[in-house]
Amino acid sequence: MASFREERDTLGPINVPSDKLWGAQTQRSLQNFDIGGERERMPEPIIRAFGVLKKCAAKVNMEYGLDQSIGKAIMQAAQEVAEGKLNDHFPLVVWQTGSGTQSNMNANEVISNRAAEIMGYKRGEKSVHPNDHVNKSQSSNDTFPTVMHIAAAMEINSRLIPELKNLHSALHSKSVEFKDIVKIGRTHTQDATPLTLGQEFSGYATQASSSSTAALFFSFFYIISRVKYGIDRVSGTLPRMYQLAQGGTAVGTGLNTKKGFDVKIAAAVAEETKLPFVTAENKFEALAAHDAFVETSGALNTIAASLMKIANDIRFLGSGPRCGLGELILPENEPGSSIMPGKVNPTQCEALTMVCAQVMGNHVAITVGGSNGHFELNVFKPLMASALLHSIRLVSDASASFVKNCVKGIQANKDRISKLLHESLMLVTSLNPKIGYDNAAAVAKKAHKEGSSLKEAALNLGMLTEKEFESLVVPEKMIAPSD
Amino acid sequence: MASFREERDTLGPINVPSDKLWGAQTQRSLQNFDIGGERERMPEPIIRAFGVLKKCAAKVNMEYGLDQSIGKAIMQAAQEVAEGKLNDHFPLVVWQTGSGTQSNMNANEVISNRAAEIMGYKRGEKSVHPNDHVNKSQSSNDTFPTVMHIAAAMEINSRLIPELKNLHSALHSKSVEFKDIVKIGRTHTQDATPLTLGQEFSGYATQASSSSTAALFFSFFYIISRVKYGIDRVSGTLPRMYQLAQGGTAVGTGLNTKKGFDVKIAAAVAEETKLPFVTAENKFEALAAHDAFVETSGALNTIAASLMKIANDIRFLGSGPRCGLGELILPENEPGSSIMPGKVNPTQCEALTMVCAQVMGNHVAITVGGSNGHFELNVFKPLMASALLHSIRLVSDASASFVKNCVKGIQANKDRISKLLHESLMLVTSLNPKIGYDNAAAVAKKAHKEGSSLKEAALNLGMLTEKEFESLVVPEKMIAPSD
Amino acid sequence: MASFREERDTLGPINVPSDKLWGAQTQRSLQNFDIGGERERMPEPIIRAFGVLKKCAAKVNMEYGLDQSIGKAIMQAAQEVAEGKLNDHFPLVVWQTGSGTQSNMNANEVISNRAAEIMGYKRGEKSVHPNDHVNKSQSSNDTFPTVMHIAAAMEINSRLIPELKNLHSALHSKSVEFKDIVKIGRTHTQDATPLTLGQEFSGYATQASSSSTAALFFSFFYIISRVKYGIDRVSGTLPRMYQLAQGGTAVGTGLNTKKGFDVKIAAAVAEETKLPFVTAENKFEALAAHDAFVETSGALNTIAASLMKIANDIRFLGSGPRCGLGELILPENEPGSSIMPGKVNPTQCEALTMVCAQVMGNHVAITVGGSNGHFELNVFKPLMASALLHSIRLVSDASASFVKNCVKGIQANKDRISKLLHESLMLVTSLNPKIGYDNAAAVAKKAHKEGSSLKEAALNLGMLTEKEFESLVVPEKMIAPSD
Amino acid sequence: MASFREERDTLGPINVPSDKLWGAQTQRSLQNFDIGGERERMPEPIIRAFGVLKKCAAKVNMEYGLDQSIGKAIMQAAQEVAEGKLNDHFPLVVWQTGSGTQSNMNANEVISNRAAEIMGYKRGEKSVHPNDHVNKSQSSNDTFPTVMHIAAAMEINSRLIPELKNLHSALHSKSVEFKDIVKIGRTHTQDATPLTLGQEFSGYATQASSSSTAALFFSFFYIISRVKYGIDRVSGTLPRMYQLAQGGTAVGTGLNTKKGFDVKIAAAVAEETKLPFVTAENKFEALAAHDAFVETSGALNTIAASLMKIANDIRFLGSGPRCGLGELILPENEPGSSIMPGKVNPTQCEALTMVCAQVMGNHVAITVGGSNGHFELNVFKPLMASALLHSIRLVSDASASFVKNCVKGIQANKDRISKLLHESLMLVTSLNPKIGYDNAAAVAKKAHKEGSSLKEAALNLGMLTEKEFESLVVPEKMIAPSD
Repeated sequence: MASFREERDTLGPINVPSDKLWGAQTQRSLQNFDIGGERERMPEPIIRAFGVLKKCAAKVNMEYGLDQSIGKAIMQAAQEVAEGKLNDHFPLVVWQTGSGTQSNMNANEVISNRAAEIMGYKRGEKSVHPNDHVNKSQSSNDTFPTVMHIAAAMEINSRLIPELKNLHSALHSKSVEFKDIVKIGRTHTQDATPLTLGQEFSGYATQASSSSTAALFFSFFYIISRVKYGIDRVSGTLPRMYQLAQGGTAVGTGLNTKKGFDVKIAAAVAEETKLPFVTAENKFEALAAHDAFVETSGALNTIAASLMKIANDIRFLGSGPRCGLGELILPENEPGSSIMPGKVNPTQCEALTMVCAQVMGNHVAITVGGSNGHFELNVFKPLMASALLHSIRLVSDASASFVKNCVKGIQANKDRISKLLHESLMLVTSLNPKIGYDNAAAVAKKAHKEGSSLKEAALNLGMLTEKEFESLVVPEKMIAPSD
Repeated sequence: MASFREERDTLGPINVPSDKLWGAQTQRSLQNFDIGGERERMPEPIIRAFGVLKKCAAKVNMEYGLDQSIGKAIMQAAQEVAEGKLNDHFPLVVWQTGSGTQSNMNANEVISNRAAEIMGYKRGEKSVHPNDHVNKSQSSNDTFPTVMHIAAAMEINSRLIPELKNLHSALHSKSVEFKDIVKIGRTHTQDATPLTLGQEFSGYATQASSSSTAALFFSFFYIISRVKYGIDRVSGTLPRMYQLAQGGTAVGTGLNTKKGFDVKIAAAVAEETKLPFVTAENKFEALAAHDAFVETSGALNTIAASLMKIANDIRFLGSGPRCGLGELILPENEPGSSIMPGKVNPTQCEALTMVCAQVMGNHVAITVGGSNGHFELNVFKPLMASALLHSIRLVSDASASFVKNCVKGIQANKDRISKLLHESLMLVTSLNPKIGYDNAAAVAKKAHKEGSSLKEAALNLGMLTEKEFESLVVPEKMIAPSD
Repeated sequence: MASFREERDTLGPINVPSDKLWGAQTQRSLQNFDIGGERERMPEPIIRAFGVLKKCAAKVNMEYGLDQSIGKAIMQAAQEVAEGKLNDHFPLVVWQTGSGTQSNMNANEVISNRAAEIMGYKRGEKSVHPNDHVNKSQSSNDTFPTVMHIAAAMEINSRLIPELKNLHSALHSKSVEFKDIVKIGRTHTQDATPLTLGQEFSGYATQASSSSTAALFFSFFYIISRVKYGIDRVSGTLPRMYQLAQGGTAVGTGLNTKKGFDVKIAAAVAEETKLPFVTAENKFEALAAHDAFVETSGALNTIAASLMKIANDIRFLGSGPRCGLGELILPENEPGSSIMPGKVNPTQCEALTMVCAQVMGNHVAITVGGSNGHFELNVFKPLMASALLHSIRLVSDASASFVKNCVKGIQANKDRISKLLHESLMLVTSLNPKIGYDNAAAVAKKAHKEGSSLKEAALNLGMLTEKEFESLVVPEKMIAPSD
Repeated sequence: MASFREERDTLGPINVPSDKLWGAQTQRSLQNFDIGGERERMPEPIIRAFGVLKKCAAKVNMEYGLDQSIGKAIMQAAQEVAEGKLNDHFPLVVWQTGSGTQSNMNANEVISNRAAEIMGYKRGEKSVHPNDHVNKSQSSNDTFPTVMHIAAAMEINSRLIPELKNLHSALHSKSVEFKDIVKIGRTHTQDATPLTLGQEFSGYATQASSSSTAALFFSFFYIISRVKYGIDRVSGTLPRMYQLAQGGTAVGTGLNTKKGFDVKIAAAVAEETKLPFVTAENKFEALAAHDAFVETSGALNTIAASLMKIANDIRFLGSGPRCGLGELILPENEPGSSIMPGKVNPTQCEALTMVCAQVMGNHVAITVGGSNGHFELNVFKPLMASALLHSIRLVSDASASFVKNCVKGIQANKDRISKLLHESLMLVTSLNPKIGYDNAAAVAKKAHKEGSSLKEAALNLGMLTEKEFESLVVPEKMIAPSD
C-alpha cells in the first residue's frame, strides 16, 4: 500500500508519495499537467544540469553568507542530482509552465529534502528550505535558461562533436581506402564523367565534419579546410551557448542578487564542467529570447541536410544486388530476405535519414518557440530545451550507429564499378583531341543506338585502331584538371 | 545474475535474456540500433495495434488452413499484446529499419514464444514459428503500414476527437455564460468597436471544434455549422486512414497471399476494433506512400494553429492583475508569486502553446518523411508513425488539461471590462447620426488630447446634453447589423 | 517629365502620378512599405477578386439605396478590375499592413476614380467616393478575407484541379499502356519480387489524384477509389473556402451593415463566379482566423509530398543511359550533353521537385501566419494569401509542364526491364514448391557468389532440367495473390 | 508585328524574338518551363553575378590563350550584364533544370550575341560562341553554384548587414533615450518587477544585432558583446559563402580546366567584387551540396525569430489608445481609423512579422532542397538560390522600413508608464526588509482584494507611515543587483 506524507506550499497542504523526495509544487504540477506520460519527462541532461547549477549556487551563496553546514549539504545533494542518482525524483513533463518554473522547484524540493536527510532532518520539514536556501539569489526565470545552456553545451561537447568527429574519421578512412578506384560520376542521376570513389567520399567527409572541432587527421590539403569548416561552424554557436543567464533573476535586472553573483556563479559552473561558461552580457536578452537555441538548432538542421544526402547516396550506390547500381557492398547486419542472398537492406541509412527528418521537424518547433514569447520572458523554454536535446541525442547516436554498423563495413564492388565505368559513353570525350568532336559524337551515337561499346563502335567506323583507342580512353586521366 | 537463452535466425544464434519473450531478430536490432534510449521506443499504440492485427491474421489464416490449436494460441497471445500486457517485451526504438520490419519481427517473436508457452512448449524452440505461423500470408511491408493505420485511427477516435469535443463544449459553455457581457473589440491590437465576450469565445469554439464530430450541442445556428466543419474535416482524413495495406505483402502485388485474404483481414480488424476499416483499394500506394499520414498531420497542424491563437488571446485577456488587459480572471492552479496575490501565470496556455509548436515541428518531420521513400516502399514509416502519434497524444492530453485546469475556471472581470469599454473612444461613432461626422471627430479628438471621457468632451463642447449622450452612446447597440 | 495630381486623405494631401488611378492611401503605402520591389506585388488573383467583390457590393448596395448611376459606374469599373485590365494601377506589395487594408483602399481608390471617369468626372475629386460609395457597408477587415477566399477558390477550381486531373489522366494512361510489362520490384532500394510497370504507375496515379474531383476515367475498380480520395480531400477543404467573411465589418459583429447584407453579397459573388459561395456562419472566426488557408495549404503540402516521390522515382527509373537503372526512357527536351547521346537529364522532374520544396516551405509560412494574430483580427492575411496562391500556381503550372514535357513522352525500355528482371535472384522463390526452400536458397547462393544466372546455377547443381526451370520461373505469375 | 531570327543548338533550329539577345537553349527553356510567369524569373542578383563571373572567366581565359579581341568583347558584354543593363534578356524562371544549366546558357547566349555585336558581327552567328568562348573551361555544374555564392555574399554585404546595423543603431539610440524611464516588467504576460524601458530595448538591440559586423557604437560594456555576437554569427557563415565552386567543372574533378584556373578565377572575382572570395577547397562538396546555403538560411531564420518577438512586443506595448497597455506611442504613418484619433495601427510591425513568417517558410524550402540531390550534383540549386535571396531581400527591406517608419518615431508614454508602475502590486517586495514578508503579503492581498493602492492598504493596516512608505517603495532602486 502506497504511503504519503504531507508537503506544503503557499496554496496549502498536499499529499506526496513517502518514497519520493519532491515537494508540494512538484506534486501540484504532476496533477495539473497530465500530458503525454512518462516518455515526455524533462530530459535527463536538464536534470543533471540542475544538479550542477544548484551545487555551484550553494557554493557561491556560502561566500555571500549562506550557512556553511546547509550549504555543504546542498552541494552534496546537488552532486547526486548531477550524477543522475535521483532521476526517479524528477517526474515532471516538458509540457508544463513555459518558464520551467516547476522543474526548478522540483530541483529545489528534491535537493532540500535530500540535504535535510543528509543533515539528519526529515523530509517535508523544510529545515533546508527549497526557496530560501536552495534557490537563494535565484529565480526560475534565470535558472531555467541557465540549465538549458549547461545541458546543451555539455551534450554538444560530450556527445555530438565526438560522434561527428568519429563519423568524419570513418568517412575519411574510406576516402583514403577508395582513392584509387576510378568510377563513373553521375549528375542529374545521369551518367557523367568519372571521378574516384575516394573523391566521392571526400565530399561526404566535408559535409559530415560540419560541426567537428577535429584537429588535423590527414595531409590532403582540402581535408584540412573541411575540418576548419567544422571549427568555424561550432565557433559560430558555442560562444553564445556558453553565456549563462544566472544572475538576471526575475526580469533580467538582477533584483535580489548581490553584485558579482552572476560572474562568480558562471565561473563556478565553468570550473565544475570544465567548459568555458561566462555570465551573459545582457541578461534581458538571456531571459526573453533564446536565439542561441534557434541558432544551434540551425546548425543541427544543416548537419541533418548533409547526413540525409550522404545516407541517400550510400543506399543508392549499394542498391542491388542485381538490379541496382551495386557499386558499394553494404555490411549485412540482420537478415534482409530469408531466401535471397545479397539482399542487404540499407537499414542504417534508413534509421539515419529518419533521424534527419525528425531533426528538421524539431528545428521548426524550436523556431516557432523562439519567435514567440512576450516582454521580459520567453515561455517556450522547456519545449526548446527538449527539442534541441532530442536532436543532439538522435544525431549523436545515429551517427555512432551509422559508423559502427555501416560505414566501417562498406566495401567497393570493384568489378561492378569497373564494368559500369567502361560501358559508359561519357568516355568518348577523350577521343576529341584525336578524331575531333564530330567524329567522337558519331562514335557515341552509334554505340548508344546499337548498345555496343565505344571501342566496338569506333573500330567499326574505322576511326582508329584498338591500340590507339586504348591509349586514349583512360578514365584515370579524366579525374583532374590538365597541366 | 542475468540469465540468457539462445535464439536463432538465418544469421545464426544469439543470446536473449531468459525473462524476455523476444527472439533473435529483436535482439539483433537492439544491438544494431542503439539510438536514443528507452524514451525512443516504438509508441505503445503501435504495439497494441500489432496485437490486434496478429490476432486477426491468425483468425483469417485458420480459415485458410492454419492449424487450429496453433491459431488459437496465437490469438490468445496476440490479445495479451493488444491489451498492453506484454509491453516490456517490445524494446525496439523508432530509429530502426524504415519499413518497421524489426518491430514486426518483434511482434512475431513475442507472440510465437508466448503462444508456445500457452501450448506448453518452451521459448525459443519455434514450435509456434514467428514467420511460418504468426506472420503467415504477411510481410513486414504490409503489416507495418497496417498497424500504423490501426493505431492512428484508434488514437484519433478514442483520444483526439473526444478531447476536442470536450474543449469545444467547454468553450461553448463559456460563450453562453458570457453572451451578455459587452466588451471592447481589438483589431491590430488597437481598440476597435465592441462585441460581446460570448461572441469572442464563439470564434474560439469554431476553431477548436475543427475536428469534432460532435452532435448538436446548442441552438445557435452558427454553432451547428462549426460542428459541421469538424465533421467535414475529419471525414476528409479518416476514410483514408481506414484503408489497410494488409494483403499487399512485399511489393503490393499480394504475392504469397490467397485471393480474398486482404478483404477478410480488414473485416476482422473492423470487427475487433469497432471501426470501419476496409482493405486499401491500391496496395501499391499503401506500401509506397503514406499520404494519409501527411494529410492527417496537416489536420493536426491546422488545429495547432487554432489552439495557439486561442491560448495566446486568453493569456493576453487575462494579463495583469494591474498592468495588463485584465478582462479575464484565470484560475490559480499553483503559486504564481510567493508574495504577490493576483499574479496568476497562464501556465496552461503555456503548456498548450508549447504543444502546438511541437505539433508544427512534427508535421514538417512527417512531410519530409512522406516526400521521401523510393520505388515500392516508403522507408520512413516508424518516424511518421511515431511523430503523428506523438502529435495526437500531445494535443489530446493538452486539450484535456486546458479544459480542466483553465477554460472551466475562467471568469469575466466585469468591472474591468466595463471600465475599458466606456473609456474607449471608439464609441464616438454612435454620435454620427445626431451631430455629424465632423463634430463627432472633434469630440474624440478633444477627449484623446485631454485624456478625458467622450461624455466630458462632448458636454464641454456643448454639442449635446448628458441625457442625449447617454441615450445615444450605448455599446449594447453596436454589436450587430442594424435592421 | 512625370506629371502629378494631388489626392487627399485624413492625413492631408499627397502627390500621385497623373496617369495612375490610385489615390492618397495607396500612394502613402507605396512610400511606407518599400519592401521587395515589383516582384512582391499583391498577387493578381487577389486584385481580380477585388474586382468581383466590389462589383457585387455595388449591386447589393443599390438594393439598399446606393445611387443607381453611381452604382452602375462602380460595377463597370470593378468589372475592368476583375478582368485584369487595371492591373497596372495596383502597385502595392504583400508586405504592408497585415489586414490588407491598403490593398482594399487601393481597390476603392482605383474603382472610384475609374467610375468617376466613366460618369464624366475627374480623377481625385471623389465624385464617386472610395469609402462612402465603393467601400459602402464594408470594412477592410471583412473585404480582405473575402477576396482571399474568392481568389483561392477560383484558382483551385480553374487551375489546380484541372491540372491535377490532367496529371492523373496522363499517369493512368501510362499505367494502362504499361500494364503487361513485368518488371523487378524494389524495396529498401534493393531488388524485390516483381510487379508490372502499370502497377507501379498506378501507385503514382493514386497519389497524384489526391485533389482531383474527376469523374470516372476508367474501369479498374481501384482507380475509381483513388479518384474518390481526390473528391473527398477537396470536399475537406473547399466548403470552408466557400464561406465568405463579408458582412462582419470591423470586428465580426456586422456593425454598420444592414441585416441580410451578408447573405445577399455571398449570393451575388456566387452568381458572378459560378462557385457555391455562402456567407460565413461565424464572422468572428472568419476575421480572426484563417484555418481554411492553413488547411488548404496542408492539402497542397500532401500533394507536394506525393509529387516529390513520383518525380524522384521517375528520374531514378530513367537513370542511365548505361550506368543507372534505365528502365524508363525520358523525353529529350533540350540538349543534355553536347557530346553524349542518351544523356537525357530529367529536368522536368527537377523543376517539379523544386516546386514541391517551395510548397512545403510556403506551408510553414502559412502555418506560422495562421497561428499568430491577436483578438478580433489576424494580421498575417497578405502573407497567407500570397503564399497559398503561390503554391497553387506553382503546383498547377509545374504539373502541366510535367505532363506535357515528361509523362506523355515516357517510354518503357523493355529490353532493359526484361534483362534486369531475369537476372534477379528474387525469382528463385518460384522454385520452392518443386525443390524445397533449402535447395532454392542454395541455388540463389551459388548464383550470387558466382555472378551467374539462376538457371545456370540450378542446372549446374543438377536440381532440375532446363525445361522444368523455364516452366517454373515465370515472373508473370508472381504479380498477384494466388487462387 | 513581332519579328524573329533563327538560332540553333544540337537539337536543331528554333525561332527567337529578334529584339532579344538570347539563343536557342534559352528559347527552349522558355517553352518547356512555363511555370509561374514573370514573377518567378531568376532573381536579379543571380543575373548580375553571372555578369561578374563571365567577365572574370574571360579575363582568366585570356591568360590561358583565349583570343584577346573576343575576350575583351566578352568582358564588355558581361560588364553590362553585371550592371543590370541586360535584365530584359534573362526571361527564364527559377523552376527549370535543377542545376541552373539553362540560366548559365542564357548568360552564355546573351553575352556571346552582345559580344558579337560589339565586335561588329550579327546575332545568332556564333562568331563569339556561347560554349567555346563564353563558357570556356566552365560547366553549368560549377558556374551556377559559383554565382549562387557571389550573389548571396554580395546581397549580404551590401544589403543585409548594413540594414541590420541600421536597425541595431536605431534600437540602441532608443535604449539610450529611454534609459531613465522605469517601468513595470512583465513575465508570463503578468506584472513583474520593474526595469527601465532602456533595459527592455537593450534586449531587442542584442537580438537585432545578431548579424551585424558593426564596430563599437557605444560605451556600455554589454552592448559591445552583442555586436560581437553579430560578428561571430556572420563569421560563422560568410567564410563558407566566400568559397567558389568554379574550376570543378562537371563533377568536381576539374576535367577540361587547366591547373590553377580555379585559384585564378576566384582571385579575379574577389578583385571585381572587393569581397574575399577563394576557391572551394573541396569541389566535390561544392557541386553536390549546398550546406552553406542551408547554414546561412539558418542564420536568417534566427534573425526572423528575433524580429518576430521585437515587433510583437512593440505592438503590444503600443496597444491602445485607451484599452491596451499604451506604454509606447507609435508613429502614425497612414489613417488608422477615419474617426478615432489615436488608433495608430502598428502596420510596420505587421509587415515585419509577415516577412519573418515567410523567411521561416523559405528556410524549410531551402532545407528540403539541401537535403535532397543525388551523387555528384544537387539539383535544387535555383530553388535554394531564389529562396535565400528572397529572404535576404525581405529582411533587409523590412528592417529599413521598420527603422524609418517605426523605430525612429517611437515615443514613450511616460504618464501611462508611471501610472502602471505605481499601481503595480509587485512593488510590495520593497517592504519586506521593514515589515517582514508576512505583513507585506497582507498589504498586497488587501490592495488586490479592494482594488486600492499599496500605500492605501499599508496605511490602512497601520503598518507604516506615509513617509516611511514613500522612502521604501522606490521602483528606481529595484532595477539592479544590490551592493
